Amino acid sequence: MMAADAIFVYVQELAEYEKLAEHVKVTQKDLEQDGFSKNPFFHGIIAEVPEQHKTKEGHTKIGYALYFYSYSSWSGRAIYMEDLYVMPEFRGKGVGKALMSKVAQLALAAGCHQLNFTVLDWNKPSMDFYLSQGSFDITASMGYHCMRCEGEALEHLAQP
Amino acid sequence: MMAADAIFVYVQELAEYEKLAEHVKVTQKDLEQDGFSKNPFFHGIIAEVPEQHKTKEGHTKIGYALYFYSYSSWSGRAIYMEDLYVMPEFRGKGVGKALMSKVAQLALAAGCHQLNFTVLDWNKPSMDFYLSQGSFDITASMGYHCMRCEGEALEHLAQP
Repeated sequence: MMAADAIFVYVQELAEYEKLAEHVKVTQKDLEQDGFSKNPFFHGIIAEVPEQHKTKEGHTKIGYALYFYSYSSWSGRAIYMEDLYVMPEFRGKGVGKALMSKVAQLALAAGCHQLNFTVLDWNKPSMDFYLSQGSFDITASMGYHCMRCEGEALEHLAQP
Repeated sequence: MMAADAIFVYVQELAEYEKLAEHVKVTQKDLEQDGFSKNPFFHGIIAEVPEQHKTKEGHTKIGYALYFYSYSSWSGRAIYMEDLYVMPEFRGKGVGKALMSKVAQLALAAGCHQLNFTVLDWNKPSMDFYLSQGSFDITASMGYHCMRCEGEALEHLAQP
């Protein structure tokens, strides 16, 4: 698989794992255009295993992290990690940690002071993993709620 | 005031309003470098009033929105609105709505499908305003928690 193909497959696997697969509207072409062109909207890191460890289906790309540069008006440059995913049969081997560590390295190299992301509150294995890495839950500790405007509401809001 | 000067002043006013002023580490120079150079980390919109409506302190720049382009692996291109601020004496006049509407216009023009942001759960006037614009609280409805890794934890995470 190419990088955009792999990300497209895993975006859907991750959404199924999160029980929110019906929300996936993005196409493989969107991912190619938006992530693999000049001035990309996101960046991706792919975890690969050697050929002899490939999956039953023959895949060697077994996980990914998707991130973009963001900004905090309080602390300056930041990275936002949109996705972190490892295929089920490769979990518990440090692949997720390695991917997140790489995102942290890229963050520091770009002068970023924060790595931000979200987690679903029922996803205790992921929450425990993130807390064990020294991340903290700013919804619980400071009261931040994630808000969204989309679809007709966004169109309506854009009317002058 | 120049744009970066104004944003620097209002970032601090906003943090004071949010009772979190001790978290502001950014400098005016950071804002100039990161927002007003090639490939900026963020974009800003400034609300200005005519000279005859200037503030007691003589300011004509009376609010701002700070945003950057982001990405949803489910729905594609998105905009993240980091800050929306209007000086207290100019609230209730539609300035916040006009700033947010402009961000929505820019979002749609860039092919974005979502406008994302956060709000503090105790900030009922802001929450009510956002809900009245058709935004929804995805922490309350879907269980998303905002997570952050910074400082020593981020340095430690970046160790290979």
